[in-house]
Amino acid sequence: MTEHQDRTERRAGRRRPQSATAAEPAADRSRSYRHLTNPFEPLKVFSEDEVASIHEAALMILENQGMRVLSERARLAYAAGGADLDPATHMVRFDRGLVAQCLSTTPREVTLHAKDPARHMPMSGKHVVFAPTSGPPNIMDLKHGRRAGTFEDFSNIMKLCQSFEVMHVLGGGVEPQDVPIQIRHLETTRAMLMLTDKIPLVYARGTGQIHDNFELIRIAYGLTREEFEAHPHTLAIINTNSPLQLDIPMAEGIMDFAEALQPLIITPFTLAGAMAPVTIAGALTLAHAEALAGLVLSQLVRPGAPIVYGSFTSNVDMKSGSPAFGTPEYAKSSFGAGQLARHIGLPWRSSNATASNSPDAQAAYESQMSLWGALMGGCNFMLHAAGWLESGLTTSYEKFILDIEMLQMFAETFQPVAASPKELALEAIAEVGPSGHFFGCAHTMERYKTAFYTPLVSDWRNFGQWTEAGGHTATERAHEIWQRTLKDYQAPARDPAVVEAIDDFVARRKSEGGAPPVS
Amino acid sequence: MTEHQDRTERRAGRRRPQSATAAEPAADRSRSYRHLTNPFEPLKVFSEDEVASIHEAALMILENQGMRVLSERARLAYAAGGADLDPATHMVRFDRGLVAQCLSTTPREVTLHAKDPARHMPMSGKHVVFAPTSGPPNIMDLKHGRRAGTFEDFSNIMKLCQSFEVMHVLGGGVEPQDVPIQIRHLETTRAMLMLTDKIPLVYARGTGQIHDNFELIRIAYGLTREEFEAHPHTLAIINTNSPLQLDIPMAEGIMDFAEALQPLIITPFTLAGAMAPVTIAGALTLAHAEALAGLVLSQLVRPGAPIVYGSFTSNVDMKSGSPAFGTPEYAKSSFGAGQLARHIGLPWRSSNATASNSPDAQAAYESQMSLWGALMGGCNFMLHAAGWLESGLTTSYEKFILDIEMLQMFAETFQPVAASPKELALEAIAEVGPSGHFFGCAHTMERYKTAFYTPLVSDWRNFGQWTEAGGHTATERAHEIWQRTLKDYQAPARDPAVVEAIDDFVARRKSEGGAPPVS
Repeated sequence: MTEHQDRTERRAGRRRPQSATAAEPAADRSRSYRHLTNPFEPLKVFSEDEVASIHEAALMILENQGMRVLSERARLAYAAGGADLDPATHMVRFDRGLVAQCLSTTPREVTLHAKDPARHMPMSGKHVVFAPTSGPPNIMDLKHGRRAGTFEDFSNIMKLCQSFEVMHVLGGGVEPQDVPIQIRHLETTRAMLMLTDKIPLVYARGTGQIHDNFELIRIAYGLTREEFEAHPHTLAIINTNSPLQLDIPMAEGIMDFAEALQPLIITPFTLAGAMAPVTIAGALTLAHAEALAGLVLSQLVRPGAPIVYGSFTSNVDMKSGSPAFGTPEYAKSSFGAGQLARHIGLPWRSSNATASNSPDAQAAYESQMSLWGALMGGCNFMLHAAGWLESGLTTSYEKFILDIEMLQMFAETFQPVAASPKELALEAIAEVGPSGHFFGCAHTMERYKTAFYTPLVSDWRNFGQWTEAGGHTATERAHEIWQRTLKDYQAPARDPAVVEAIDDFVARRKSEGGAPPVS
Repeated sequence: MTEHQDRTERRAGRRRPQSATAAEPAADRSRSYRHLTNPFEPLKVFSEDEVASIHEAALMILENQGMRVLSERARLAYAAGGADLDPATHMVRFDRGLVAQCLSTTPREVTLHAKDPARHMPMSGKHVVFAPTSGPPNIMDLKHGRRAGTFEDFSNIMKLCQSFEVMHVLGGGVEPQDVPIQIRHLETTRAMLMLTDKIPLVYARGTGQIHDNFELIRIAYGLTREEFEAHPHTLAIINTNSPLQLDIPMAEGIMDFAEALQPLIITPFTLAGAMAPVTIAGALTLAHAEALAGLVLSQLVRPGAPIVYGSFTSNVDMKSGSPAFGTPEYAKSSFGAGQLARHIGLPWRSSNATASNSPDAQAAYESQMSLWGALMGGCNFMLHAAGWLESGLTTSYEKFILDIEMLQMFAETFQPVAASPKELALEAIAEVGPSGHFFGCAHTMERYKTAFYTPLVSDWRNFGQWTEAGGHTATERAHEIWQRTLKDYQAPARDPAVVEAIDDFVARRKSEGGAPPVS
């Protein structure tokens, strides 16, 4: 028979529990989003033999072809470790023995440490960590449209990150283009440390900036250099220049982070059909070789440096060359990349990406394809988890909120389904009987406050009520939500002496000219 | 470093293959969507012991409490099979022996037969079948808003179903409220048989209508009664009246379909917290008991009648009593329901549902939660796969198109990822070399036409091009697409003699007053 709900709604309206005028505030429930573990077995696209053959092919690429390494310091480090150096082409080649040696010194477990131990974030095994979008030069919201990102926008994104428990680690948010590039790292890292109590992800844009960022974190956390190096306290993304090239800032990033034993996410950015082979297996083979090359450099600099296996394999539109994200190929690449990460025993990073130009239905369904692909592929660290739009060229306030809703839905999906005799509810079923309802029975009353996810954006009112309230789309509601969240934002408590020390450091480094990014 | 794509796009624009001015037409590729198999291992929320304990609890409900059966004919059938009958309450109780006996006669394999064998649809094991939304009284599109469904709308939805290979089987589409209810089944079934060559799903609204529908299909396919009964040629949904009641039309539907050996999807519609226990495990226990009760009736009437295990377990908003769909609880219920279906060895039906009132981002992300929950739970038959909006009260033309896009993306995700040495692309990687590109290499040229999914709705142009083209959202683009699809619709060839015979039958039955629905 027809499966619509008017009868249900009428019954519900008539007979819901008297005390259930409001569900439990989402804020209380959201404490469980602070640390997530994924209970599902990862999905696979390759057999174990195929995974082994991709790993083998990547080793052959490194042995026979190698990587072009633009940094002399990095070339010397590779050579000192036994790699073959071609002085004319800057190609670096090394054999599987060196790869195996470096894999053996790379830690299997990585836990990020915050000032507050409650914010420590394990990111191995079944753990899942979410970080916001990083790097878009533009910002967008429904009212003001698309424009260059500013420091105010950057700060707003950090405040939004602080406001949602499901956002675990920070990220670049949006590029504050009104801050000169030689001091941008100082301003953004200070803002992260002042506006939030979460772990900052910083950029690797040359040794000068990296050392400034490490010092800011040491001041904020009150750590000596030894204490800082004793645990991961920050992390950065390293993108190889696919195919098969490692540029100077990326190589310096690998070496500087390794020297301080701070974790790096090495992510070849491989768009199948453009800078990678047109086949998923080929694009992943290339990416795997490049990730291993980065890992080898890190371990040659300092054995034991923590490495996260990053993947960012998608496809291009073969009509226009435009990148595409959240495609079927993207989801399948994610399943495959997760298999490769587990094959070498490393935590795995993926992304929540879309090519949509608008925070619309396309943005939502492409993001869901990305999220399910990553999370059911066993992803440990999700960069760009909230706010990414337009293939990463824009951070959208409304998309940030829509993404938070989706991330919270995954956080709830990860909670186990209890199936003890009490949950099977035989007594309640006997009590209610045929054609009765469960709204008021004891079994429901004991559980209804926390039984279900309370949405942030979703509107479940009936059509009449929704229309009377203005008939707003989810994107329009998200516009209200980010503004309200910023209004309600609460800064974490900060020791005035620490604030002063950070301000002094920033002032001094600015007076010294900051640190221009290396290119 | 920042992960945005402008450099990629520039490279692509400059150097894409000369002949790649257009990707392969989607129509050619979409032939592979006609029959789908799901390569992934189903996700689970319960241990095997927990699944067994839910099955056991459902048997206890049927033994100790039973189902209220409103149809006397059905009560007599249960009693003839050995069930206990309470004449005062119409409660029917039976023991696990009878359930086991009936499970042993229920077929494990079900294949729907069409007139054209190319349209036969296996729906067991790893097979996946999509059918459109069924039952909404209202229709909606961007231009005309929400209104009562008409026969023209019904016909349009059937034409859209015919136009996309990924839509495998038909469904109720939308209720044509301008057609009187006693002849509505005649008009809608005739329209399905004339406008499409796909298998009709019909309603079970009493014996009179069911027999008319069977006769229409026999005329259209040129089948004797024996030939009709030799294979499944249509199917219907049976919703129990949760909790624990089976009404007259549903009971008649079970018996009439079983007598003709036509498959039934028995779907308890259990909203946790309303007509089912507030716990997922409790709601599934109740649903499992009710599905088994329906299955027992079918096998008592005719052993060997095909049954699909239906589940439709979601939750309500405990604030308002409104039903919610595409929630975390919905996805987890799907995983659990799939486990229960496999426990008793039956094909499993799920749904693509959302509570959104608009074909917006909420509709998209809730549908994706429903789709991933169902498909990664191992769903064989997906009802409401395209068009459902507003908790099933409205069929949306734009949502239909957005859903087709999502279904096609799953169809592509199901295609295997090749990983032979050629796909690993070592030669292409060697040919292209460091910092080169793969746009024009032989490996790409051989594959680029069919390498990637060609989207229906998604717009991957850059922001400037997209803005110049009008800056339309995905929902606005879907509005254009459904209108264009209707314009391009092609009716299947029909034998004039068959058309005449169908028209004669419909005219005769209309002159006889049709068949009022039973209630």
